[in-house]
Amino acid sequence: MSSDFPLSKINRRVLISGMALLPVVSGMPLTGIAQAQTTLGGSLASWNDGAAKQAIIDFVKATTDQGSPKFVPPEERIATFDQDGTLWVEHPIYSQVVYCLDRVPAVVEKDPKLKNVEPFKTVLSGNREAIAKLSLHDLEKILATTLTGMSVEEFTAEATKWLAAAKDPRWKRPYTDLIYQPMLEVMQYLRGNGFKTYIVTGGGQDFVRVHSGRVYGVPPEQVVGTAGGTKFGYHKDGQPFLTKEPRLLLNDDKAGKPEGIHLMIGRRPYAAFGNSDGDRQMLEYTGAGDGARLMMLVMHDDAKREYAYGPAQGLPASKVGTFTQALYDEAKKKSWTVISMKNDWKRIFAFDQTA
Amino acid sequence: MSSDFPLSKINRRVLISGMALLPVVSGMPLTGIAQAQTTLGGSLASWNDGAAKQAIIDFVKATTDQGSPKFVPPEERIATFDQDGTLWVEHPIYSQVVYCLDRVPAVVEKDPKLKNVEPFKTVLSGNREAIAKLSLHDLEKILATTLTGMSVEEFTAEATKWLAAAKDPRWKRPYTDLIYQPMLEVMQYLRGNGFKTYIVTGGGQDFVRVHSGRVYGVPPEQVVGTAGGTKFGYHKDGQPFLTKEPRLLLNDDKAGKPEGIHLMIGRRPYAAFGNSDGDRQMLEYTGAGDGARLMMLVMHDDAKREYAYGPAQGLPASKVGTFTQALYDEAKKKSWTVISMKNDWKRIFAFDQTA
Repeated sequence: MSSDFPLSKINRRVLISGMALLPVVSGMPLTGIAQAQTTLGGSLASWNDGAAKQAIIDFVKATTDQGSPKFVPPEERIATFDQDGTLWVEHPIYSQVVYCLDRVPAVVEKDPKLKNVEPFKTVLSGNREAIAKLSLHDLEKILATTLTGMSVEEFTAEATKWLAAAKDPRWKRPYTDLIYQPMLEVMQYLRGNGFKTYIVTGGGQDFVRVHSGRVYGVPPEQVVGTAGGTKFGYHKDGQPFLTKEPRLLLNDDKAGKPEGIHLMIGRRPYAAFGNSDGDRQMLEYTGAGDGARLMMLVMHDDAKREYAYGPAQGLPASKVGTFTQALYDEAKKKSWTVISMKNDWKRIFAFDQTA
Repeated sequence: MSSDFPLSKINRRVLISGMALLPVVSGMPLTGIAQAQTTLGGSLASWNDGAAKQAIIDFVKATTDQGSPKFVPPEERIATFDQDGTLWVEHPIYSQVVYCLDRVPAVVEKDPKLKNVEPFKTVLSGNREAIAKLSLHDLEKILATTLTGMSVEEFTAEATKWLAAAKDPRWKRPYTDLIYQPMLEVMQYLRGNGFKTYIVTGGGQDFVRVHSGRVYGVPPEQVVGTAGGTKFGYHKDGQPFLTKEPRLLLNDDKAGKPEGIHLMIGRRPYAAFGNSDGDRQMLEYTGAGDGARLMMLVMHDDAKREYAYGPAQGLPASKVGTFTQALYDEAKKKSWTVISMKNDWKRIFAFDQTA
């Protein structure tokens, strides 16, 4: 962070380092965030000068300058952000999957007959190699079992507790510390210019809502994610509550992203940010609108400060966030902007003092 | 409207009478509405003094006064409104059903074999008595056929055209003129006090989004309604688009209302407004939260200025918006406020000059 922006440094510390350690709830006041937004309005301090930074600035100028032929009225200014790999670290495994694996012992304690049933047996064994080999079908079973069957409030309490305690093994920090500072600055910069920022994630909508306000300044109603149904019912005392059900309403990935955007927002975004083939349709849908549109893809090409995976541009393949060469070629053809983490970002994380 | 509020009169004319005649689109700028909100912030001018008006004022005071023990941070201030019978006329038939019936000839023209198939044959006959006797199953078939199978943009264009031309047979005015002025004032009053107003309707989400911004000042992303899936695909030229599908994602009625609120908003409302048994669970869910909560039910007891139907309090039964005696009793028991259109409202519609 450049020394000419001391206030943002303080605010960021409060937002990311300090608050991450506090117990939080889904509906937590965003006052701190809102203040930071105003303060940070125009800063892209963690970006190196270059085509990517310039594309963001040019887009905001074109859409917010009243004299611009591409001016967009404030209420139509919608920007959507994928989360995993675009706003925070997704490699080598999605944080939500870690959450679900960590929840297995508690689930088995409540339902002991699962102890000797696969895939729960393998998870309980603690054998990392065997766990890494679980099939997609096995993982889906684990997700369904650990994310549903409880009330909405119980789920929020559990996920909140986990987020406060769990740590990424490489950085030894809470997962919510591992958000990309340059992307946080883009969100704040867009909001400072009248854009409503949405998270549009393949991750669980309720899971992301638990931290979206505190970490990104995005309220729960602006999180579009993979969503299951809930069931309305009554406690014995007559108080109503909602139970999370293993019934998929929206698979918010690939074609599901523009479909989810229509369901939850009902407007075409003017800007969309992603990092993988799962975001392709969201960027295509955004780009199909008229006027100025901004489509950006984060490319993980920084093995030293984060990770390097693709396989676009010959980067090693990954199980998460696959950025294929075909997507890279489409981006070039359609003038979408590819962000090189290595070259475009001065720093990756707020705690990174190398910049 | 009282003569001490000339500005709101002008704004309302612009909003309701003038703009209703213009061609509109879903994403229409809300600048006019936003201005009206500010201007009308504190006005409940079409309400008679009484318990209902006082309940609204007391609730706003309790939740927005920083010194109040029931103060609610601005970002948590969510208010939800049913539409049919709560914000506009629903009797004797929902406007959206009229839209679907009116669309049948165009659908048959595109697919002539439907001409001799029921229930389309009956609709084409124009025999009002026979049409009124169509079963729920028949109506569902008509809704599915007329509301799906086209792109999102085609649907919006059709519904916009219909809204601008169609007229209610009793008042000989566009349906969007038949909104309840006192309820519009409540929405504006709440927004003026930092509340986000949502429509939570059993009606079609996409249908209501077409007019929600222009008529209520509620943007498309704040409309929760009965929603079908869409399917992402490509035109021959490679441009992506979404097709409306006959696949129900959310039946936003009864228990579906709190379920839809959790899906689309992810927060429990602090205030909820309805008029029928379809809104019961939404009000129960709202009332189950702590602190100050406002639950209100519009009772149609004004046969002269609008309609009288119930069957609560011995009012005649209706095919739409059934307000049962059981709901009335629950409201009394739980201290929800029942609004008497006859006694609590000085005027029903903006164009009504009797007040």
